Amino acid sequence: MASPDFRDSFSRVLLHNNPGASATEPNLQAALAESVSNPGGLLRAGLVLSAAARHGLDSSRAEQLACALEYWHQASLILDDLPCMDDAERRRGLPCLHRTHGEATAVLAALALINRAYSLVQHAFSADSAEVRQTACDLVDHALGAAGILGGQAWDLRFGSATRAPREIGRIACRKTGALVWLALSLPLLSSGAWQEEQRSLRALSVYWALTYQGMDDLLDLAAVGRESGKTAGRDSALHRPNLSIAFGVPDARRRIERLLGQAELLVLALSSRNMKWTYLADWHERLFTSRYRLLIAA
Amino acid sequence: MASPDFRDSFSRVLLHNNPGASATEPNLQAALAESVSNPGGLLRAGLVLSAAARHGLDSSRAEQLACALEYWHQASLILDDLPCMDDAERRRGLPCLHRTHGEATAVLAALALINRAYSLVQHAFSADSAEVRQTACDLVDHALGAAGILGGQAWDLRFGSATRAPREIGRIACRKTGALVWLALSLPLLSSGAWQEEQRSLRALSVYWALTYQGMDDLLDLAAVGRESGKTAGRDSALHRPNLSIAFGVPDARRRIERLLGQAELLVLALSSRNMKWTYLADWHERLFTSRYRLLIAA
Repeated sequence: MASPDFRDSFSRVLLHNNPGASATEPNLQAALAESVSNPGGLLRAGLVLSAAARHGLDSSRAEQLACALEYWHQASLILDDLPCMDDAERRRGLPCLHRTHGEATAVLAALALINRAYSLVQHAFSADSAEVRQTACDLVDHALGAAGILGGQAWDLRFGSATRAPREIGRIACRKTGALVWLALSLPLLSSGAWQEEQRSLRALSVYWALTYQGMDDLLDLAAVGRESGKTAGRDSALHRPNLSIAFGVPDARRRIERLLGQAELLVLALSSRNMKWTYLADWHERLFTSRYRLLIAA
Repeated sequence: MASPDFRDSFSRVLLHNNPGASATEPNLQAALAESVSNPGGLLRAGLVLSAAARHGLDSSRAEQLACALEYWHQASLILDDLPCMDDAERRRGLPCLHRTHGEATAVLAALALINRAYSLVQHAFSADSAEVRQTACDLVDHALGAAGILGGQAWDLRFGSATRAPREIGRIACRKTGALVWLALSLPLLSSGAWQEEQRSLRALSVYWALTYQGMDDLLDLAAVGRESGKTAGRDSALHRPNLSIAFGVPDARRRIERLLGQAELLVLALSSRNMKWTYLADWHERLFTSRYRLLIAA
Protein backbone atom coordinates (compact mmCIF):
# COMPACT_ATOMS: atom_id res chain seq x y z
CA MET A 1 0.00 0.00 0.00
CA ALA A 2 2.79 2.41 0.94
CA SER A 3 5.04 3.71 -1.84
CA PRO A 4 8.56 2.21 -1.87
CA ASP A 5 10.04 5.62 -0.96
CA PHE A 6 7.77 6.06 2.03
CA ARG A 7 8.38 2.46 3.11
CA ASP A 8 12.08 3.06 2.91
CA SER A 9 12.12 6.31 4.85
CA PHE A 10 9.63 5.17 7.47
CA SER A 11 11.55 1.94 8.02
CA ARG A 12 14.30 4.08 9.49
CA VAL A 13 11.82 5.52 12.01
CA LEU A 14 10.70 2.01 13.01
CA LEU A 15 14.32 0.93 13.48
CA HIS A 16 15.31 4.10 15.31
CA ASN A 17 12.65 3.59 17.99
CA ASN A 18 13.23 -0.16 18.29
CA PRO A 19 12.83 -1.00 22.00
CA GLY A 20 15.53 -3.67 21.78
CA ALA A 21 18.95 -2.29 22.74
CA SER A 22 22.38 -3.84 22.49
CA ALA A 23 22.14 -5.23 26.05
CA THR A 24 18.78 -6.90 25.35
CA GLU A 25 18.65 -10.68 25.69
CA PRO A 26 19.62 -12.03 22.24
CA ASN A 27 16.39 -13.93 21.44
CA LEU A 28 14.24 -10.93 22.31
CA GLN A 29 16.60 -8.64 20.43
CA ALA A 30 16.39 -10.83 17.32
CA ALA A 31 12.59 -11.02 17.50
CA LEU A 32 12.34 -7.23 17.83
CA ALA A 33 14.79 -6.65 14.99
CA GLU A 34 12.79 -8.96 12.75
CA SER A 35 9.54 -7.33 13.77
CA VAL A 36 10.56 -3.69 13.23
CA SER A 37 12.31 -4.44 9.94
CA ASN A 38 9.31 -6.16 8.35
CA PRO A 39 6.55 -3.54 8.34
CA GLY A 40 3.24 -4.19 6.62
CA GLY A 41 1.32 -1.68 4.51
CA LEU A 42 2.04 1.18 6.93
CA LEU A 43 -1.50 2.43 6.49
CA ARG A 44 -1.71 3.86 10.00
CA ALA A 45 1.64 5.63 9.72
CA GLY A 46 0.71 6.98 6.29
CA LEU A 47 -2.57 8.40 7.58
CA VAL A 48 -0.82 10.11 10.49
CA LEU A 49 1.87 11.67 8.31
CA SER A 50 -0.66 12.91 5.73
CA ALA A 51 -2.78 14.46 8.47
CA ALA A 52 0.28 16.08 10.04
CA ALA A 53 1.44 17.55 6.72
CA ARG A 54 -1.95 19.15 6.07
CA HIS A 55 -2.79 20.24 9.60
CA GLY A 56 0.56 21.64 10.68
CA LEU A 57 1.87 19.04 13.11
CA ASP A 58 5.67 19.05 13.01
CA SER A 59 7.26 16.04 11.42
CA SER A 60 9.19 14.69 14.41
CA ARG A 61 6.01 14.54 16.52
CA ALA A 62 4.12 13.03 13.61
CA GLU A 63 6.78 10.34 13.24
CA GLN A 64 6.51 9.49 16.93
CA LEU A 65 2.74 9.07 16.65
CA ALA A 66 3.00 7.13 13.39
CA CYS A 67 5.63 4.80 14.84
CA ALA A 68 3.57 4.23 18.00
CA LEU A 69 0.52 3.20 15.96
CA GLU A 70 2.57 0.82 13.82
CA TYR A 71 4.13 -0.72 16.96
CA TRP A 72 0.71 -1.23 18.55
CA HIS A 73 -0.58 -2.69 15.31
CA GLN A 74 2.41 -4.98 14.99
CA ALA A 75 2.06 -6.11 18.62
CA SER A 76 -1.63 -6.89 18.08
CA LEU A 77 -0.75 -9.05 15.07
CA ILE A 78 1.99 -10.90 16.97
CA LEU A 79 -0.46 -11.66 19.78
CA ASP A 80 -3.38 -12.53 17.44
CA ASP A 81 -1.14 -15.09 15.71
CA LEU A 82 -0.26 -16.97 18.93
CA PRO A 83 -1.29 -20.62 19.26
CA CYS A 84 -3.86 -19.71 21.92
CA MET A 85 -5.44 -17.11 19.59
CA ASP A 86 -5.45 -17.80 15.81
CA ASP A 87 -2.51 -20.22 15.75
CA ALA A 88 -1.33 -18.70 12.48
CA GLU A 89 1.70 -19.84 10.52
CA ARG A 90 2.68 -16.88 8.41
CA ARG A 91 2.45 -13.13 8.60
CA ARG A 92 3.75 -10.52 6.19
CA GLY A 93 5.39 -13.18 4.06
CA LEU A 94 7.42 -14.74 6.90
CA PRO A 95 6.76 -17.41 9.52
CA CYS A 96 4.99 -15.85 12.51
CA LEU A 97 7.27 -14.53 15.23
CA HIS A 98 6.34 -17.27 17.73
CA ARG A 99 7.23 -19.94 15.17
CA THR A 100 10.74 -18.57 14.68
CA HIS A 101 11.53 -17.28 18.17
CA GLY A 102 9.20 -19.22 20.45
CA GLU A 103 5.94 -18.16 22.06
CA ALA A 104 7.45 -16.58 25.18
CA THR A 105 9.81 -14.37 23.18
CA ALA A 106 6.99 -13.37 20.82
CA VAL A 107 4.85 -12.28 23.80
CA LEU A 108 7.76 -10.30 25.27
CA ALA A 109 8.51 -8.66 21.91
CA ALA A 110 4.87 -7.58 21.57
CA LEU A 111 4.95 -6.13 25.08
CA ALA A 112 8.19 -4.26 24.36
CA LEU A 113 6.62 -2.69 21.26
CA ILE A 114 3.50 -1.78 23.24
CA ASN A 115 5.56 -0.21 26.03
CA ARG A 116 7.66 1.87 23.64
CA ALA A 117 4.53 3.04 21.80
CA TYR A 118 3.01 4.55 24.96
CA SER A 119 6.25 6.37 25.57
CA LEU A 120 6.34 7.72 21.99
CA VAL A 121 2.80 9.08 22.23
CA GLN A 122 3.58 10.82 25.51
CA HIS A 123 6.68 12.37 23.99
CA ALA A 124 4.68 13.55 20.97
CA PHE A 125 2.21 15.40 23.21
CA SER A 126 4.67 16.56 25.86
CA ALA A 127 4.46 20.25 24.90
CA ASP A 128 0.66 20.31 24.60
CA SER A 129 -1.91 21.64 27.05
CA ALA A 130 -3.21 19.41 29.84
CA GLU A 131 -6.54 19.21 28.00
CA VAL A 132 -4.99 17.92 24.76
CA ARG A 133 -2.82 15.43 26.66
CA GLN A 134 -5.85 14.21 28.57
CA THR A 135 -7.82 13.71 25.37
CA ALA A 136 -4.92 11.80 23.81
CA CYS A 137 -4.57 9.61 26.88
CA ASP A 138 -8.30 8.84 27.01
CA LEU A 139 -8.51 8.09 23.28
CA VAL A 140 -5.61 5.64 23.59
CA ASP A 141 -7.00 3.99 26.73
CA HIS A 142 -10.34 3.51 24.98
CA ALA A 143 -8.96 2.38 21.61
CA LEU A 144 -6.56 -0.22 22.99
CA GLY A 145 -8.56 -1.44 25.98
CA ALA A 146 -11.60 -3.60 26.61
CA ALA A 147 -13.75 -1.20 24.54
CA GLY A 148 -11.28 -1.35 21.64
CA ILE A 149 -8.75 -3.80 20.24
CA LEU A 150 -8.52 -6.08 23.28
CA GLY A 151 -12.27 -6.22 23.62
CA GLY A 152 -12.68 -6.88 19.90
CA GLN A 153 -10.23 -9.75 20.10
CA ALA A 154 -12.06 -11.18 23.12
CA TRP A 155 -15.38 -11.14 21.20
CA ASP A 156 -13.60 -12.57 18.17
CA LEU A 157 -12.35 -15.56 20.20
CA ARG A 158 -15.80 -16.09 21.66
CA PHE A 159 -17.40 -16.03 18.26
CA GLY A 160 -17.06 -19.76 17.67
CA SER A 161 -19.56 -20.38 20.44
CA ALA A 162 -21.85 -17.39 19.82
CA THR A 163 -24.62 -16.59 17.35
CA ARG A 164 -23.26 -15.15 14.10
CA ALA A 165 -25.29 -11.96 13.99
CA PRO A 166 -23.89 -9.76 11.17
CA ARG A 167 -24.25 -6.71 13.37
CA GLU A 168 -21.93 -8.35 15.92
CA ILE A 169 -19.37 -9.08 13.21
CA GLY A 170 -19.40 -5.42 12.31
CA ARG A 171 -18.92 -4.39 15.94
CA ILE A 172 -15.89 -6.65 16.24
CA ALA A 173 -14.40 -5.16 13.06
CA CYS A 174 -14.92 -1.64 14.43
CA ARG A 175 -13.10 -2.56 17.61
CA LYS A 176 -10.29 -4.58 16.13
CA THR A 177 -9.60 -2.65 12.94
CA GLY A 178 -11.37 0.62 13.61
CA ALA A 179 -9.63 1.44 16.89
CA LEU A 180 -6.17 2.13 15.45
CA VAL A 181 -7.60 3.78 12.32
CA TRP A 182 -9.52 6.08 14.62
CA LEU A 183 -6.31 6.92 16.50
CA ALA A 184 -4.52 7.49 13.18
CA LEU A 185 -7.25 9.92 12.09
CA SER A 186 -7.61 11.72 15.40
CA LEU A 187 -4.29 11.89 17.30
CA PRO A 188 -2.41 14.06 14.75
CA LEU A 189 -5.23 16.65 14.86
CA LEU A 190 -5.75 17.04 18.59
CA SER A 191 -3.81 20.25 18.87
CA SER A 192 -5.47 21.82 15.81
CA GLY A 193 -8.91 23.43 15.52
CA ALA A 194 -9.86 20.81 12.93
CA TRP A 195 -10.36 18.27 15.71
CA GLN A 196 -13.15 20.23 17.38
CA GLU A 197 -14.94 20.86 14.10
CA GLU A 198 -14.83 17.46 12.48
CA GLN A 199 -14.33 14.77 15.08
CA ARG A 200 -17.76 13.24 14.41
CA SER A 201 -17.13 12.94 10.69
CA LEU A 202 -13.71 11.40 11.36
CA ARG A 203 -15.24 8.93 13.78
CA ALA A 204 -17.84 7.92 11.17
CA LEU A 205 -15.09 7.58 8.55
CA SER A 206 -13.09 5.28 10.83
CA VAL A 207 -16.17 3.07 11.15
CA TYR A 208 -16.88 2.97 7.38
CA TRP A 209 -13.23 2.25 6.65
CA ALA A 210 -12.97 -0.44 9.32
CA LEU A 211 -16.07 -2.21 8.01
CA THR A 212 -14.91 -1.92 4.39
CA TYR A 213 -11.43 -3.13 5.25
CA GLN A 214 -12.79 -6.06 7.23
CA GLY A 215 -15.27 -6.87 4.46
CA MET A 216 -12.49 -6.94 1.84
CA ASP A 217 -10.22 -8.95 4.13
CA ASP A 218 -13.00 -11.48 4.67
CA LEU A 219 -13.57 -11.82 0.91
CA LEU A 220 -9.82 -12.35 0.50
CA ASP A 221 -9.68 -14.91 3.31
CA LEU A 222 -12.36 -16.95 1.54
CA ALA A 223 -10.76 -16.53 -1.88
CA ALA A 224 -7.15 -17.06 -0.83
CA VAL A 225 -7.50 -20.60 0.54
CA GLY A 226 -4.73 -22.60 -1.08
CA ARG A 227 -3.21 -19.55 -2.78
CA GLU A 228 0.08 -17.88 -1.93
CA SER A 229 -0.54 -14.92 0.38
CA GLY A 230 1.42 -13.11 3.05
CA LYS A 231 -0.57 -14.57 5.91
CA THR A 232 -2.35 -17.78 6.80
CA ALA A 233 -5.54 -17.99 4.71
CA GLY A 234 -8.87 -19.69 5.29
CA ARG A 235 -8.51 -19.28 9.06
CA ASP A 236 -11.90 -17.65 9.60
CA SER A 237 -13.93 -20.64 8.59
CA ALA A 238 -11.51 -23.11 10.20
CA LEU A 239 -11.60 -21.24 13.51
CA HIS A 240 -15.28 -20.20 13.36
CA ARG A 241 -14.14 -16.59 13.43
CA PRO A 242 -16.47 -13.81 12.32
CA ASN A 243 -16.30 -13.38 8.53
CA LEU A 244 -18.70 -11.03 6.77
CA SER A 245 -18.56 -12.98 3.49
CA ILE A 246 -19.48 -16.21 5.24
CA ALA A 247 -22.22 -14.48 7.23
CA PHE A 248 -23.85 -12.61 4.30
CA GLY A 249 -22.78 -14.78 1.37
CA VAL A 250 -20.39 -13.34 -1.23
CA PRO A 251 -22.90 -11.38 -3.39
CA ASP A 252 -24.47 -9.67 -0.39
CA ALA A 253 -21.07 -9.06 1.19
CA ARG A 254 -19.97 -7.32 -2.02
CA ARG A 255 -23.06 -5.14 -2.15
CA ARG A 256 -22.43 -4.22 1.48
CA ILE A 257 -18.83 -3.22 0.74
CA GLU A 258 -19.99 -1.12 -2.22
CA ARG A 259 -22.52 0.67 -0.05
CA LEU A 260 -19.87 1.38 2.60
CA LEU A 261 -17.44 2.61 -0.06
CA GLY A 262 -20.13 5.01 -1.27
CA GLN A 263 -20.85 6.29 2.24
CA ALA A 264 -17.17 6.86 2.98
CA GLU A 265 -16.75 8.64 -0.35
CA LEU A 266 -19.61 11.01 0.36
CA LEU A 267 -18.08 11.76 3.73
CA VAL A 268 -14.58 12.54 2.44
CA LEU A 269 -16.07 14.69 -0.35
CA ALA A 270 -18.14 16.64 2.16
CA LEU A 271 -15.08 17.17 4.37
CA SER A 272 -12.97 18.31 1.39
CA SER A 273 -15.68 20.71 0.25
CA ARG A 274 -15.73 22.36 3.68
CA ASN A 275 -11.94 22.66 3.83
CA MET A 276 -9.26 21.77 1.30
CA LYS A 277 -7.08 20.47 4.15
CA TRP A 278 -9.12 17.26 4.11
CA THR A 279 -8.40 16.26 0.52
CA TYR A 280 -5.76 13.77 1.73
CA LEU A 281 -8.62 11.66 3.04
CA ALA A 282 -10.10 11.38 -0.47
CA ASP A 283 -6.65 10.31 -1.76
CA TRP A 284 -6.36 7.66 0.93
CA HIS A 285 -9.90 6.47 0.31
CA GLU A 286 -9.13 5.96 -3.37
CA ARG A 287 -5.78 4.31 -2.73
CA LEU A 288 -6.77 2.06 0.15
CA PHE A 289 -10.27 1.07 -0.71
CA THR A 290 -11.74 1.99 -4.08
CA SER A 291 -8.80 0.85 -6.19
CA ARG A 292 -8.12 -2.16 -3.98
CA TYR A 293 -11.73 -3.23 -4.25
CA ARG A 294 -11.63 -2.93 -8.06
CA LEU A 295 -8.58 -5.22 -8.08
CA LEU A 296 -10.27 -7.62 -5.70
CA ILE A 297 -13.43 -8.12 -7.74
CA ALA A 298 -11.44 -8.29 -11.00
CA ALA A 299 -9.31 -11.15 -9.62
CA MET B 1 2.13 -7.93 54.12
CA ALA B 2 -0.49 -5.22 53.94
CA SER B 3 -2.70 -4.63 56.99
CA PRO B 4 -6.30 -5.87 56.61
CA ASP B 5 -7.56 -2.26 56.72
CA PHE B 6 -5.25 -1.11 53.96
CA ARG B 7 -6.05 -4.21 51.92
CA ASP B 8 -9.71 -3.48 52.29
CA SER B 9 -9.55 0.18 51.36
CA PHE B 10 -7.10 -0.32 48.50
CA SER B 11 -9.22 -3.13 47.07
CA ARG B 12 -11.82 -0.50 46.30
CA VAL B 13 -9.25 1.45 44.29
CA LEU B 14 -8.34 -1.68 42.31
CA LEU B 15 -12.00 -2.37 41.59
CA HIS B 16 -12.78 1.24 40.75
CA ASN B 17 -10.13 1.36 38.01
CA ASN B 18 -10.94 -2.10 36.65
CA PRO B 19 -10.56 -1.86 32.85
CA GLY B 20 -13.42 -4.32 32.33
CA ALA B 21 -16.75 -2.53 31.82
CA SER B 22 -20.28 -3.87 31.64
CA ALA B 23 -20.08 -4.19 27.84
CA THR B 24 -16.83 -6.18 27.99
CA GLU B 25 -16.91 -9.72 26.58
CA PRO B 26 -18.00 -11.94 29.52
CA ASN B 27 -14.88 -14.18 29.71
CA LEU B 28 -12.55 -11.20 29.71
CA GLN B 29 -14.79 -9.40 32.19
CA ALA B 30 -14.74 -12.40 34.56
CA ALA B 31 -10.96 -12.75 34.29
CA LEU B 32 -10.47 -9.05 35.06
CA ALA B 33 -12.91 -9.15 37.97
CA GLU B 34 -11.07 -12.14 39.43
CA SER B 35 -7.74 -10.47 38.90
CA VAL B 36 -8.53 -7.09 40.45
CA SER B 37 -10.34 -8.64 43.41
CA ASN B 38 -7.46 -10.92 44.41
CA PRO B 39 -4.55 -8.59 45.16
CA GLY B 40 -1.29 -9.89 46.58
CA GLY B 41 0.76 -8.22 49.32
CA LEU B 42 0.23 -4.74 47.82
CA LEU B 43 3.84 -3.88 48.56
CA ARG B 44 4.16 -1.53 45.60
CA ALA B 45 0.90 0.27 46.42
CA GLY B 46 1.90 0.54 50.08
CA LEU B 47 5.27 2.07 49.22
CA VAL B 48 3.64 4.65 46.94
CA LEU B 49 1.03 5.67 49.49
CA SER B 50 3.61 5.97 52.30
CA ALA B 51 5.84 8.11 50.10
CA ALA B 52 2.90 10.28 49.08
CA ALA B 53 1.80 10.82 52.70
CA ARG B 54 5.28 11.96 53.75
CA HIS B 55 6.21 13.97 50.66
CA GLY B 56 2.94 15.81 50.08
CA LEU B 57 1.51 14.09 47.00
CA ASP B 58 -2.29 14.29 47.12
CA SER B 59 -4.06 11.05 47.81
CA SER B 60 -6.03 10.75 44.58
CA ARG B 61 -2.86 11.01 42.48
CA ALA B 62 -1.09 8.62 44.83
CA GLU B 63 -3.91 6.10 44.43
CA GLN B 64 -3.66 6.34 40.65
CA LEU B 65 0.08 5.61 40.76
CA ALA B 66 -0.33 2.85 43.33
CA CYS B 67 -3.08 1.19 41.30
CA ALA B 68 -1.03 1.43 38.11
CA LEU B 69 1.94 -0.32 39.73
CA GLU B 70 -0.27 -3.07 41.12
CA TYR B 71 -1.89 -3.56 37.69
CA TRP B 72 1.50 -3.80 35.99
CA HIS B 73 2.68 -6.20 38.65
CA GLN B 74 -0.46 -8.32 38.32
CA ALA B 75 -0.13 -8.38 34.53
CA SER B 76 3.50 -9.49 34.79
CA LEU B 77 2.46 -12.37 37.07
CA ILE B 78 -0.36 -13.43 34.73
CA LEU B 79 2.06 -13.50 31.81
CA ASP B 80 4.90 -15.18 33.78
CA ASP B 81 2.50 -17.98 34.72
CA LEU B 82 1.53 -18.82 31.10
CA PRO B 83 2.34 -22.28 29.73
CA CYS B 84 4.98 -20.78 27.41
CA MET B 85 6.69 -19.07 30.37
CA ASP B 86 6.64 -20.81 33.80
CA ASP B 87 3.54 -22.95 33.18
CA ALA B 88 2.44 -22.35 36.77
CA GLU B 89 -0.66 -23.84 38.35
CA ARG B 90 -1.50 -21.56 41.23
CA ARG B 91 -1.04 -17.91 42.12
CA ARG B 92 -2.19 -16.03 45.19
CA GLY B 93 -4.01 -19.11 46.47
CA LEU B 94 -6.10 -19.65 43.32
CA PRO B 95 -5.58 -21.50 40.05
CA CYS B 96 -3.70 -19.26 37.62
CA LEU B 97 -5.87 -17.08 35.41
CA HIS B 98 -5.08 -19.04 32.24
CA ARG B 99 -6.15 -22.27 33.92
CA THR B 100 -9.58 -20.89 34.82
CA HIS B 101 -10.27 -18.62 31.85
CA GLY B 102 -8.02 -19.95 29.10
CA GLU B 103 -4.69 -18.67 27.82
CA ALA B 104 -6.08 -16.19 25.30
CA THR B 105 -8.32 -14.50 27.86
CA ALA B 106 -5.47 -14.39 30.39
CA VAL B 107 -3.25 -12.62 27.82
CA LEU B 108 -6.02 -10.13 27.01
CA ALA B 109 -6.71 -9.48 30.71
CA ALA B 110 -3.00 -8.77 31.30
CA LEU B 111 -2.97 -6.36 28.36
CA ALA B 112 -6.10 -4.60 29.61
CA LEU B 113 -4.46 -4.08 33.02
CA ILE B 114 -1.27 -2.82 31.35
CA ASN B 115 -3.21 -0.40 29.15
CA ARG B 116 -5.20 1.03 32.05
CA ALA B 117 -2.03 1.44 34.13
CA TYR B 118 -0.39 3.70 31.52
CA SER B 119 -3.51 5.81 31.48
CA LEU B 120 -3.56 6.07 35.30
CA VAL B 121 0.07 7.23 35.43
CA GLN B 122 -0.58 9.88 32.80
CA HIS B 123 -3.60 11.12 34.73
CA ALA B 124 -1.55 11.25 37.93
CA PHE B 125 1.04 13.54 36.29
CA SER B 126 -1.31 15.54 34.11
CA ALA B 127 -0.90 18.78 36.09
CA ASP B 128 2.90 18.53 36.36
CA SER B 129 5.57 20.34 34.37
CA ALA B 130 6.76 18.92 31.05
CA GLU B 131 10.05 18.01 32.73
CA VAL B 132 8.39 15.94 35.47
CA ARG B 133 6.10 14.24 32.95
CA GLN B 134 9.05 13.43 30.76
CA THR B 135 10.96 11.91 33.66
CA ALA B 136 7.94 9.81 34.62
CA CYS B 137 7.49 8.63 31.06
CA ASP B 138 11.17 7.70 30.68
CA LEU B 139 11.30 5.91 34.04
CA VAL B 140 8.26 3.83 33.06
CA ASP B 141 9.58 3.07 29.57
CA HIS B 142 12.88 1.90 31.08
CA ALA B 143 11.41 -0.06 34.00
CA LEU B 144 8.85 -2.00 31.95
CA GLY B 145 10.80 -2.44 28.72
CA ALA B 146 13.71 -4.50 27.47
CA ALA B 147 15.98 -2.94 30.11
CA GLY B 148 13.49 -3.75 32.88
CA ILE B 149 10.80 -6.35 33.53
CA LEU B 150 10.46 -7.64 29.98
CA GLY B 151 14.19 -7.90 29.57
CA GLY B 152 14.54 -9.62 32.93
CA GLN B 153 11.92 -12.16 31.95
CA ALA B 154 13.70 -12.77 28.64
CA TRP B 155 16.99 -13.48 30.45
CA ASP B 156 15.11 -15.60 32.95
CA LEU B 157 13.70 -17.81 30.18
CA ARG B 158 17.10 -18.10 28.57
CA PHE B 159 18.69 -19.12 31.84
CA GLY B 160 18.13 -22.83 31.32
CA SER B 161 20.60 -22.77 28.46
CA ALA B 162 23.04 -20.19 29.87
CA THR B 163 25.86 -20.29 32.44
CA ARG B 164 24.60 -19.82 36.00
CA ALA B 165 26.79 -16.91 37.01
CA PRO B 166 25.49 -15.53 40.36
CA ARG B 167 26.04 -11.99 39.12
CA GLU B 168 23.67 -12.69 36.25
CA ILE B 169 21.03 -14.02 38.65
CA GLY B 170 21.26 -10.76 40.56
CA ARG B 171 20.87 -8.73 37.38
CA ILE B 172 17.73 -10.63 36.49
CA ALA B 173 16.31 -10.02 39.97
CA CYS B 174 17.04 -6.30 39.67
CA ARG B 175 15.21 -6.16 36.37
CA LYS B 176 12.26 -8.36 37.23
CA THR B 177 11.65 -7.38 40.86
CA GLY B 178 13.62 -4.16 41.12
CA ALA B 179 11.97 -2.34 38.23
CA LEU B 180 8.55 -1.89 39.85
CA VAL B 181 10.05 -1.31 43.31
CA TRP B 182 12.12 1.46 41.75
CA LEU B 183 8.98 2.98 40.20
CA ALA B 184 7.20 2.68 43.58
CA LEU B 185 10.06 4.53 45.28
CA SER B 186 10.55 7.18 42.63
CA LEU B 187 7.26 8.07 40.89
CA PRO B 188 5.51 9.53 43.97
CA LEU B 189 8.47 11.87 44.58
CA LEU B 190 9.05 13.28 41.10
CA SER B 191 7.30 16.55 41.77
CA SER B 192 9.03 17.07 45.14
CA GLY B 193 12.53 18.33 45.86
CA ALA B 194 13.32 15.02 47.59
CA TRP B 195 13.71 13.37 44.20
CA GLN B 196 16.61 15.57 43.12
CA GLU B 197 18.41 15.12 46.43
CA GLU B 198 18.07 11.41 47.01
CA GLN B 199 17.43 9.61 43.74
CA ARG B 200 20.76 7.78 43.92
CA SER B 201 20.08 6.44 47.39
CA LEU B 202 16.60 5.37 46.36
CA ARG B 203 18.01 3.61 43.31
CA ALA B 204 20.50 1.74 45.50
CA LEU B 205 17.72 0.83 47.93
CA SER B 206 15.60 -0.61 45.11
CA VAL B 207 18.56 -2.81 44.14
CA TYR B 208 19.22 -4.02 47.72
CA TRP B 209 15.54 -4.71 48.25
CA ALA B 210 15.14 -6.48 44.92
CA LEU B 211 18.12 -8.74 45.65
CA THR B 212 16.94 -9.43 49.20
CA TYR B 213 13.40 -10.12 48.06
CA GLN B 214 14.60 -12.44 45.31
CA GLY B 215 16.99 -14.16 47.71
CA MET B 216 14.20 -14.82 50.22
CA ASP B 217 11.82 -15.93 47.47
CA ASP B 218 14.45 -18.35 46.20
CA LEU B 219 14.98 -19.82 49.69
CA LEU B 220 11.20 -20.20 49.96
CA ASP B 221 10.93 -21.82 46.54
CA LEU B 222 13.46 -24.45 47.62
CA ALA B 223 11.85 -24.94 51.03
CA ALA B 224 8.23 -24.89 49.90
CA VAL B 225 8.38 -27.91 47.58
CA GLY B 226 5.51 -30.13 48.58
CA ARG B 227 4.13 -27.61 51.11
CA GLU B 228 0.98 -25.57 50.78
CA SER B 229 1.78 -22.11 49.42
CA GLY B 230 -0.07 -19.52 47.38
CA LYS B 231 1.88 -20.22 44.22
CA THR B 232 3.46 -23.12 42.44
CA ALA B 233 6.62 -24.11 44.34
CA GLY B 234 9.85 -25.77 43.28
CA ARG B 235 9.55 -24.29 39.80
CA ASP B 236 13.03 -22.78 39.70
CA SER B 237 14.86 -26.04 39.79
CA ALA B 238 12.31 -27.80 37.57
CA LEU B 239 12.55 -25.07 34.94
CA HIS B 240 16.29 -24.34 35.35
CA ARG B 241 15.34 -20.81 36.34
CA PRO B 242 17.83 -18.59 38.18
CA ASN B 243 17.65 -19.26 41.93
CA LEU B 244 20.18 -17.66 44.26
CA SER B 245 19.91 -20.46 46.84
CA ILE B 246 20.64 -23.08 44.23
CA ALA B 247 23.50 -21.03 42.80
CA PHE B 248 25.20 -20.18 46.12
CA GLY B 249 24.02 -23.05 48.32
CA VAL B 250 21.67 -22.28 51.23
CA PRO B 251 24.29 -21.20 53.85
CA ASP B 252 25.99 -18.77 51.46
CA ALA B 253 22.64 -17.54 50.14
CA ARG B 254 21.63 -16.74 53.74
CA ARG B 255 24.86 -14.86 54.46
CA ARG B 256 24.30 -12.92 51.26
CA ILE B 257 20.75 -11.96 52.28
CA GLU B 258 22.02 -10.87 55.71
CA ARG B 259 24.68 -8.68 54.12
CA LEU B 260 22.09 -7.09 51.82
CA LEU B 261 19.71 -6.52 54.74
CA GLY B 262 22.52 -4.75 56.55
CA GLN B 263 23.35 -2.54 53.57
CA ALA B 264 19.72 -1.58 53.06
CA GLU B 265 19.38 -0.81 56.76
CA LEU B 266 22.38 1.49 56.73
CA LEU B 267 20.93 3.27 53.74
CA VAL B 268 17.47 3.86 55.23
CA LEU B 269 19.05 5.03 58.50
CA ALA B 270 21.24 7.49 56.63
CA LEU B 271 18.24 8.80 54.70
CA SER B 272 16.18 9.17 57.89
CA SER B 273 19.01 10.97 59.66
CA ARG B 274 19.17 13.53 56.85
CA ASN B 275 15.42 14.09 56.81
CA MET B 276 12.66 12.66 59.00
CA LYS B 277 10.45 12.37 55.92
CA TRP B 278 12.30 9.17 55.01
CA THR B 279 11.48 7.23 58.17
CA TYR B 280 8.72 5.35 56.33
CA LEU B 281 11.46 3.53 54.44
CA ALA B 282 12.89 2.16 57.72
CA ASP B 283 9.38 0.99 58.67
CA TRP B 284 8.95 -0.76 55.34
CA HIS B 285 12.41 -2.27 55.56
CA GLU B 286 11.57 -3.78 58.95
CA ARG B 287 8.13 -4.97 57.89
CA LEU B 288 9.02 -6.36 54.48
CA PHE B 289 12.45 -7.75 54.98
CA THR B 290 13.95 -7.93 58.47
CA SER B 291 10.93 -9.45 60.19
CA ARG B 292 10.08 -11.64 57.22
CA TYR B 293 13.63 -12.96 57.14
CA ARG B 294 13.51 -13.76 60.87
CA LEU B 295 10.33 -15.77 60.26
CA LEU B 296 11.88 -17.48 57.27
CA ILE B 297 14.99 -18.73 59.06
CA ALA B 298 12.97 -19.71 62.14
CA ALA B 299 10.70 -21.91 60.00
